[in-house]
Amino acid sequence: MAGNTFGEIFKITTFGESHGAAVGVIVDGVTPGIEIDEAYIQKQMDRRKPGQSSVTSPRKEYDIIHILSGVFEGKTTGTPLFVNLYNQDMKPEAYNDIQNSYRPGHADFTYLQKYGIRDHRGSGRASGRETAGRVAGGAVARKLLEHRGVEVLAYTREIGGISCQTFEEEAIERNAVRACDPIAGAKMIEKIEQLAAIGDSCGGIVECRIRGVMPGLGEPVFDKLDAELAKAMLSIGAVKGIEFGAGFAASSMLGSEHNDEMDSEGFLSNHSGGILGGISTGQEIIFRISVKPTSSISVAQKTLNVKGEEQEIRTIGRHDPCICPRIVPVVEAMACLVLEDLYKRQAANHG
Amino acid sequence: MAGNTFGEIFKITTFGESHGAAVGVIVDGVTPGIEIDEAYIQKQMDRRKPGQSSVTSPRKEYDIIHILSGVFEGKTTGTPLFVNLYNQDMKPEAYNDIQNSYRPGHADFTYLQKYGIRDHRGSGRASGRETAGRVAGGAVARKLLEHRGVEVLAYTREIGGISCQTFEEEAIERNAVRACDPIAGAKMIEKIEQLAAIGDSCGGIVECRIRGVMPGLGEPVFDKLDAELAKAMLSIGAVKGIEFGAGFAASSMLGSEHNDEMDSEGFLSNHSGGILGGISTGQEIIFRISVKPTSSISVAQKTLNVKGEEQEIRTIGRHDPCICPRIVPVVEAMACLVLEDLYKRQAANHG
Amino acid sequence: MAGNTFGEIFKITTFGESHGAAVGVIVDGVTPGIEIDEAYIQKQMDRRKPGQSSVTSPRKEYDIIHILSGVFEGKTTGTPLFVNLYNQDMKPEAYNDIQNSYRPGHADFTYLQKYGIRDHRGSGRASGRETAGRVAGGAVARKLLEHRGVEVLAYTREIGGISCQTFEEEAIERNAVRACDPIAGAKMIEKIEQLAAIGDSCGGIVECRIRGVMPGLGEPVFDKLDAELAKAMLSIGAVKGIEFGAGFAASSMLGSEHNDEMDSEGFLSNHSGGILGGISTGQEIIFRISVKPTSSISVAQKTLNVKGEEQEIRTIGRHDPCICPRIVPVVEAMACLVLEDLYKRQAANHG
Amino acid sequence: MAGNTFGEIFKITTFGESHGAAVGVIVDGVTPGIEIDEAYIQKQMDRRKPGQSSVTSPRKEYDIIHILSGVFEGKTTGTPLFVNLYNQDMKPEAYNDIQNSYRPGHADFTYLQKYGIRDHRGSGRASGRETAGRVAGGAVARKLLEHRGVEVLAYTREIGGISCQTFEEEAIERNAVRACDPIAGAKMIEKIEQLAAIGDSCGGIVECRIRGVMPGLGEPVFDKLDAELAKAMLSIGAVKGIEFGAGFAASSMLGSEHNDEMDSEGFLSNHSGGILGGISTGQEIIFRISVKPTSSISVAQKTLNVKGEEQEIRTIGRHDPCICPRIVPVVEAMACLVLEDLYKRQAANHG
Repeated sequence: MAGNTFGEIFKITTFGESHGAAVGVIVDGVTPGIEIDEAYIQKQMDRRKPGQSSVTSPRKEYDIIHILSGVFEGKTTGTPLFVNLYNQDMKPEAYNDIQNSYRPGHADFTYLQKYGIRDHRGSGRASGRETAGRVAGGAVARKLLEHRGVEVLAYTREIGGISCQTFEEEAIERNAVRACDPIAGAKMIEKIEQLAAIGDSCGGIVECRIRGVMPGLGEPVFDKLDAELAKAMLSIGAVKGIEFGAGFAASSMLGSEHNDEMDSEGFLSNHSGGILGGISTGQEIIFRISVKPTSSISVAQKTLNVKGEEQEIRTIGRHDPCICPRIVPVVEAMACLVLEDLYKRQAANHG
Repeated sequence: MAGNTFGEIFKITTFGESHGAAVGVIVDGVTPGIEIDEAYIQKQMDRRKPGQSSVTSPRKEYDIIHILSGVFEGKTTGTPLFVNLYNQDMKPEAYNDIQNSYRPGHADFTYLQKYGIRDHRGSGRASGRETAGRVAGGAVARKLLEHRGVEVLAYTREIGGISCQTFEEEAIERNAVRACDPIAGAKMIEKIEQLAAIGDSCGGIVECRIRGVMPGLGEPVFDKLDAELAKAMLSIGAVKGIEFGAGFAASSMLGSEHNDEMDSEGFLSNHSGGILGGISTGQEIIFRISVKPTSSISVAQKTLNVKGEEQEIRTIGRHDPCICPRIVPVVEAMACLVLEDLYKRQAANHG
Repeated sequence: MAGNTFGEIFKITTFGESHGAAVGVIVDGVTPGIEIDEAYIQKQMDRRKPGQSSVTSPRKEYDIIHILSGVFEGKTTGTPLFVNLYNQDMKPEAYNDIQNSYRPGHADFTYLQKYGIRDHRGSGRASGRETAGRVAGGAVARKLLEHRGVEVLAYTREIGGISCQTFEEEAIERNAVRACDPIAGAKMIEKIEQLAAIGDSCGGIVECRIRGVMPGLGEPVFDKLDAELAKAMLSIGAVKGIEFGAGFAASSMLGSEHNDEMDSEGFLSNHSGGILGGISTGQEIIFRISVKPTSSISVAQKTLNVKGEEQEIRTIGRHDPCICPRIVPVVEAMACLVLEDLYKRQAANHG
Repeated sequence: MAGNTFGEIFKITTFGESHGAAVGVIVDGVTPGIEIDEAYIQKQMDRRKPGQSSVTSPRKEYDIIHILSGVFEGKTTGTPLFVNLYNQDMKPEAYNDIQNSYRPGHADFTYLQKYGIRDHRGSGRASGRETAGRVAGGAVARKLLEHRGVEVLAYTREIGGISCQTFEEEAIERNAVRACDPIAGAKMIEKIEQLAAIGDSCGGIVECRIRGVMPGLGEPVFDKLDAELAKAMLSIGAVKGIEFGAGFAASSMLGSEHNDEMDSEGFLSNHSGGILGGISTGQEIIFRISVKPTSSISVAQKTLNVKGEEQEIRTIGRHDPCICPRIVPVVEAMACLVLEDLYKRQAANHG
């Protein structure tokens, strides 16, 4: 209810503040008897952690995870799988200056309005650090989806107005911004470095493709596959929009253009993004999200302090000038969580 | 779980097929002691019903609702409020031709894949008629929100590539497409009529503004205000995307441009769409959705029948050549449901 | 949240007041493709309806149900199955005298405290009439359980201090009190008639046996099979206690007596009631509930009116002097709902 | 869904196996701004921990808890409060003998049937050690209830057939069995020690009184206050029954005896146990649970091994010969969780 649990059957509950003692996740509803180890989850954590490249935050978190329950002799038992990460490189004192001010674009103001109290240290629970638990939980989902033959792949499509012109899958994890076009990726890195130098930031577009999903996944009416994915993606901080298949372009197409025809080979196009009536068609599922520029910038901006007095603020700290590269594994994690949950719901429908 | 319930505390459960006996909704979690009558709900139903203008489906449904429980002597009692609508103008035989074929852009294929059985009559549960229950439930939420001073307003921003150039609030309900610019609206009507004449269809963009929401609404992490609204909107058939505030344009802005600064008068801009960290700022909440062109067209298209044989299909029937005008009240209804639920969740947080 | 939905995956949502327009239920999560018809559900409704014998309330409700959605050509479709019952024999004016008084043993006082408003006509939503929707929903669950080979059987074990001495299964539906011992049943009827004559009432004990459940049903920790059954049974008005297997007698047994030993034929006893660690053993599941005497009696009693003034009250109306016979089908319905839901949850665990 | 979460708005999710690395709990939905510290929670943990007296298991767990999130500068923040306990005195090798056998009265058989895999070390997740997380979460609820003026008190009413004859509240925490009659308590201790000496065990009855609850708590129909408490109590391992107020005795009372009359001073009796129609009356809430004798005994018993072969078993280990004294704080914790959740649900109803 307070919103720290995601999923209906396969579900995660996360906890932890940016500069608190630890962050982590309880994964419930795990299929029993599946082989999994810490290294498998760690691999995904490493893709999300700070300090992994020149364009990410220099905070030094190794994000070493520990599985403290739910796995016995290398296999899941069906009981809750708990993953813990102790925070290491906390610098709460770095936030002393801003503890009484609202940083523009941040949740400082809204948290205080909501709760009447806030942990100001590195945004507390509103920090991107909160996604560590998501990625750990998503890794468990990913392992289960592997057994179903499902593959989830996200990557940067655009940063700072620079778009990918090609789709080279093998290039994605080889460039620091996770672009699907390495040439565009190089330009994006250059752009980010320029902005970082002047203390500014930029946004971008991340795309996700999901392959191998059986037709029939998704619950019609309120829990449509696209509705669940939309919620999952908009639940990630910094995401401002989502579109499936033809997306916003669909709004200016004719029905005769947009409808995906079929012949004996299958669908002749994929304007729907692999989803009809909220249910998977068996085609590739494809969606894109809009990522806003990072709010933490050292450019001077007008704001208020908690007493309501005007002031100027510069956010000094260890931030990502563009969050796209590190959002990619979070997008994948959330997509995995949605899919595994819907697979289990479909099993229940017929079970 | 099967996805016919929406909301956590204030919640609706809907039932009904397009050409079955009835459609309706149980509204649970209603604040007791609130005055409400059938006329209040009926007014919203009338905005959604078919046959209301030259650009909507000519199906003749008066959509007369009846409250069968939960109201006593004109006031809500806190017990489930049940609203029933008997279907009137059913023509199931009109669908005999398509009972064994998959209409392109429809959920015929995916429903059969999912369930192994489908009620083909007018798309059964996948019909837009399913939204009648949403609008009835949304009207109850709207009544409760009136007491909170919250106002929800949706309208057509664009149809068939024709965009509104002005925002004239009082014009919206006075033109058949519910455009916020009556001159653009007249062109949209013309465009729809031209497409209808050749059996084709078009899509558009619907925008929604929410005023009077207190700061602090929305649950951080997974149940952010924008995440809940995104799920609600993508759960409406034909919606292919959503964006909040600056939306997809945010992806090419700098942090120094996108961040909303504050002074003693409040926020100096609203790129965030009234939501920071998933929590309302107290500003106007604003989002837009992409609506695909109606799938039911009489232009010939390639498809398969249930035996997997290729065939050509033309969907003859009573359809909306553009669904935007009738989606407007559904968007408002879903937004009302999200808001009332989050208000009650916030009451619980502090209660 | 407001508590009108029961179940997690296979679930029912009910509505309706005793003397309102209708009562009914939406059943969600129904397995698709299962044959079911109104007659099957009606049969269970007839076991619950008033006026069925000399020892039940003379209110004349035929309780004719109608399935208005979710079934197509005689089979479930997987979409919500809605069952409606219009109330017929309403006499709201019979309750004018008590609209401003709290009947002892009734929920009049607590409903007003909770909601600040109440529909006093026949107890409104607090009436036993509310169970009509449960029985209709339970009948759908029963049909699905038949396919699993599960059988649920409840019956009266004791009324007014008169206990059954034998267990004759075929006798149960042949005597008006649904006793498993027809000789004891005859004495119970006599006792009830004597009490009815002087305007008093009595309680009893209802027992339930469930056969054919596979081992492994029930979710450990919070959603144990016995925990779910306990909630289901205590959610029935008039139930004051439940015990499984040896039940309260277990509290004075030794471990060496209570533990059920096993040999190659299986378990040698069933003190556990067929449940270990909250999970079914595959044995017969057995539990008993305590049913309080009906609160509505015409014996004079002290009470208060809504102004807090003392008064004497006699509840005149059409009541059951002992509710056990009519609780039997409700107990079965609730048990069926719990079981079908847990079967689907188990399918999801491994799905 | 997999059943490791309890509550709807104020809710806990627990994890951990008896001889795994850790056990713990995430508490979500905590009211912000409430003072709480580790010592407050620790006090409740100490009442539950093993080794606290001559009649409890000699396992040496100090059960030192750590709050790792959700508290900032001594106050709750409204974000998830995570409590962790590392296990200390694990002796998994002590269970080697029984890893391939089903101990009578234990969940060994049913876990294996359910999951196809089990962590046999000390019963894994089926161990009473699982309740550590409940007690930690319950302590947070207890703190919030203190602010509401609600007091929850459980104690032993009967052990091994020896019943308390008096109710001396201040004696409860002063005797090792937490009996409300210290003289009976002394006899209970003697009885337990005799049984322990011969390797046998016994059960008992625990009673709970809740004071200070406002009238109006509990959701009618399925989520009645008594239904929620029943589920909570039956979810505790070893509990075989529950009764409210007059309980099973109500089944042989007349309506004229059982109904609680009212005069201007309030209710004249409390046969209802403080609950009418599933809603609190404002009186003391009272219920009793039946606790079975501990399953782990060293008396020889017949059983099967996992191959289905007959064998004799004696369970050697560190066990409680009677679990009543240590169930008392768990009963209180679960009652606190139910109450705080229902208070928040009531706030939402009117919020």
